[in-house]
Amino acid sequence: MTDKRPGQHSPWLLPDAVEELLPPAAAALEGLRQSSLERCARWGYELVMPPVIEYLEALLSGVAHDLDLQTFKLTDQLSGRMMGVRADITPQAARIDAHQLRREGPVRLCYSGTVLRTRAEGGEGSRNPLQMGAELYGHAGIESDVEVISLMAEVLTAAGVDSLHVDLGHVGIFRGLCSAAGLDSGDEAQLWDALQRKATADIEALLVALDVAPEHRRRLAALAGLSGGIETLEIAREALEGSGEAVRSALDALAQTARALQASHPDLILHFDLGELRGYRYHTGVVFAAYTPGVSGELARGGRYDDIGAIFGRGRPATGFSADLKALLRATVPATDDPADGVAIGAPWSSDAALRARVNALRAAGETVIWMLPGHDGAGAGVECNRQLVPDTDGGWQIESMETTGNQ
Amino acid sequence: MTDKRPGQHSPWLLPDAVEELLPPAAAALEGLRQSSLERCARWGYELVMPPVIEYLEALLSGVAHDLDLQTFKLTDQLSGRMMGVRADITPQAARIDAHQLRREGPVRLCYSGTVLRTRAEGGEGSRNPLQMGAELYGHAGIESDVEVISLMAEVLTAAGVDSLHVDLGHVGIFRGLCSAAGLDSGDEAQLWDALQRKATADIEALLVALDVAPEHRRRLAALAGLSGGIETLEIAREALEGSGEAVRSALDALAQTARALQASHPDLILHFDLGELRGYRYHTGVVFAAYTPGVSGELARGGRYDDIGAIFGRGRPATGFSADLKALLRATVPATDDPADGVAIGAPWSSDAALRARVNALRAAGETVIWMLPGHDGAGAGVECNRQLVPDTDGGWQIESMETTGNQ
Repeated sequence: MTDKRPGQHSPWLLPDAVEELLPPAAAALEGLRQSSLERCARWGYELVMPPVIEYLEALLSGVAHDLDLQTFKLTDQLSGRMMGVRADITPQAARIDAHQLRREGPVRLCYSGTVLRTRAEGGEGSRNPLQMGAELYGHAGIESDVEVISLMAEVLTAAGVDSLHVDLGHVGIFRGLCSAAGLDSGDEAQLWDALQRKATADIEALLVALDVAPEHRRRLAALAGLSGGIETLEIAREALEGSGEAVRSALDALAQTARALQASHPDLILHFDLGELRGYRYHTGVVFAAYTPGVSGELARGGRYDDIGAIFGRGRPATGFSADLKALLRATVPATDDPADGVAIGAPWSSDAALRARVNALRAAGETVIWMLPGHDGAGAGVECNRQLVPDTDGGWQIESMETTGNQ
Repeated sequence: MTDKRPGQHSPWLLPDAVEELLPPAAAALEGLRQSSLERCARWGYELVMPPVIEYLEALLSGVAHDLDLQTFKLTDQLSGRMMGVRADITPQAARIDAHQLRREGPVRLCYSGTVLRTRAEGGEGSRNPLQMGAELYGHAGIESDVEVISLMAEVLTAAGVDSLHVDLGHVGIFRGLCSAAGLDSGDEAQLWDALQRKATADIEALLVALDVAPEHRRRLAALAGLSGGIETLEIAREALEGSGEAVRSALDALAQTARALQASHPDLILHFDLGELRGYRYHTGVVFAAYTPGVSGELARGGRYDDIGAIFGRGRPATGFSADLKALLRATVPATDDPADGVAIGAPWSSDAALRARVNALRAAGETVIWMLPGHDGAGAGVECNRQLVPDTDGGWQIESMETTGNQ
């Protein structure tokens, strides 16, 4: 048992970027969690609960290097093998679809659970988000992308997001351009990195250093600037003309997805950013992120990530979204330190059978009833009683209004 | 990215004693989680969500050595300090009461979350239980012990436990006997260990080796045999007579707790075991565990653990219980591999506004509606549709019963 207290640290302070939720915020987050999962269930998404720890190979197979860096490593004392604490639940859901369920046809899964990260993403945000997401396996058409974007929009709107902006992109455009330019995967990774930083000068320098032919260089350099409204897709079609079938079909898929979303969700504000790839670690097709004005950072993100399950025995089409419910709660509910206003009923501590029966009935009817422990008349702090049970004249109990005492 | 597959291990197998929940078990567990927390809320217990990781000092301060051994250790890359993955949430709740809330009067907290253990408890069970519990701070009387035992009984009964047996004990009896016998804390720990193993010969040998006076030896050795019905308390009073005020008042508290429970919960089957201390890591008073016939291992356990929060700045009376909801689910719901019977409605994929409005209205009314993706007529596997939306003659949509196709 450790009992030392280093000079500048209180032993009970939490690590940086690790948060906990107190009343009443914890109950608000739990409500958001329950209603989000309930919505997914109404769309036919079945709940799964993958474990917080897995063997490292299982956790990191098929995903990008940065997820490895973000994953806490542990030694399994039973097997001596390395385990990781999940930094993302999506690859676990893909493993479940490919290896555990092995069903034919579309499979819809949803989940909610804590993930941990060695460092907060982009140096800000939380190291212990509460990830919630939904994934659709076994269907390769744009209809499944549209479905998960629609479900994401419904979850965010239900959480209280007023004005929903969705950024759309397609990883296949960048990949197709790299492939047409003859870049190998190492070159592609360097370029991806420069593009994420929107470092136009670095991109140019890198392309020259890699000896990329001028027409490919022009197209790859143009990517960073291809952002805006729906017209961006036409501009891109001209700017990227001649870069091959993969790029053309990616642009087609993006345009079809956008049209379907405009038809079904006219309120969504769509934005296109063909060079934005940050955070799309294992994606292969249409990618998207949701924002709202006045909140920095995305509220949710997702996209298509076909064949991530191949390592688990079965490559399958896959698309989905996920969100950090803690960030979503902060974005939609004003922070408050006030305890929730009490609406509880106080009951004197007693083993009187009639009182116990009355208390049970009130609780079953949805009331909060608090036993007033001897020596502590009045409610427990935090939940205040505005009514109390008092004996009536014929051995029963009745509810009486209480003066608000303003305790705590 | 790791891609090697050791000979005897599939990369996608889970570590030993680490489980995940698939449909429909995951939804059943989620339902149990929600209803258990809802019950706690009705009793005035406020939800808290402490983090999965904390600095090791905060996690292990005031708790016993075996919790240290069960705790996975991690290095915080931001501070260089050691962190632990929580193996128990109760001490975190005590930290929140003592350090974060700092309220006067009784504080009632509840929680539910994953804990991790380096080894399964007693070599069996899970290394990633879903712990749920409720804790009551700031009240030292037996009334608060009775309250948390009553709440535990209600949570277990609501989960489907038919016949509830509660074992009661009191850590103060053992501690009082040790103190009267002049044993130091090292001797006490050895004796605790032998007592947990019910190793009567070892207990005798140890007491002789420690040069304990015969009358103390007799009383300490008698502990292991003091178990049975309510009469055990009278037998104990005689067998332990003369061992001092601490033992006497522990026996009194136990008897009062039992009488109050008998009055308020006549259906509870009470059992007393004064030498049973296994798993009571940081407890100081009345301790209890709940069982049901036909299920090995306890369903829930708890007890009084006053002053654990002292390290966080404020020692407070404390009592509470916790349960592993995964084990509780296994104990109450027959395991099944069958996907839940479908009660969903299939909807053809379309951006028709009338159809979208109808789907939204059905979902809002609690129906599950699944988009039938092009190329995959019929429902997704796992959730089967028994009805479908079809166009009617005047541009609207109506629900039509479907032949059960028995797909998957």
